[in-house]
Amino acid sequence: MFIAMNRFRIAKGFEEGFEDVWRKRDSYLSEVPGFESFALLKGPEREDYVLYSSHTVWKSREAFEAWTESDHFRKAHAQASAPKGTYLAHPELETFEAVVQ
Amino acid sequence: MFIAMNRFRIAKGFEEGFEDVWRKRDSYLSEVPGFESFALLKGPEREDYVLYSSHTVWKSREAFEAWTESDHFRKAHAQASAPKGTYLAHPELETFEAVVQ
Repeated sequence: MFIAMNRFRIAKGFEEGFEDVWRKRDSYLSEVPGFESFALLKGPEREDYVLYSSHTVWKSREAFEAWTESDHFRKAHAQASAPKGTYLAHPELETFEAVVQ
Repeated sequence: MFIAMNRFRIAKGFEEGFEDVWRKRDSYLSEVPGFESFALLKGPEREDYVLYSSHTVWKSREAFEAWTESDHFRKAHAQASAPKGTYLAHPELETFEAVVQ
């Protein structure tokens, strides 16, 4: 199992607009080989932001990397973005391999 | 869906010993109400450490919190720990609620 998480620092007051973008976006992920599941996660609230993380599970790192180079990826990322002021920093991608299950 | 991740900064050279502790430990999780799945994840390698994260999925935050106050939790955490020098920092717990799926 391979998990890709993209961490977003979202300014307080912008949570709803950010979640809406994800609710409305067509990710096209269900068509992608090796894709297993997606969730947008709401994490801890810090002093000046709320941590969110997109959480996608893949059969393998290779499946994830193939997706990032695919037309599905480009189509998903060409859609509407969140309102100005939403992001306090660039998203931070972290990828993980399951080593014990 | 609720996900609890405990982030560990593991000193380079100590990865195998750290993974062994998790391989050998009996977590008793399968007996816990509301528990869905567990994985130990190996994440990005940074300059002076490797990021690992324990990844447990629960039906709800309440199920996770009940577990942290249970005898199962105490039994699982009373077992052998990793060799000295393994941890570069205290583990950092982050919990997440799925808001879009």
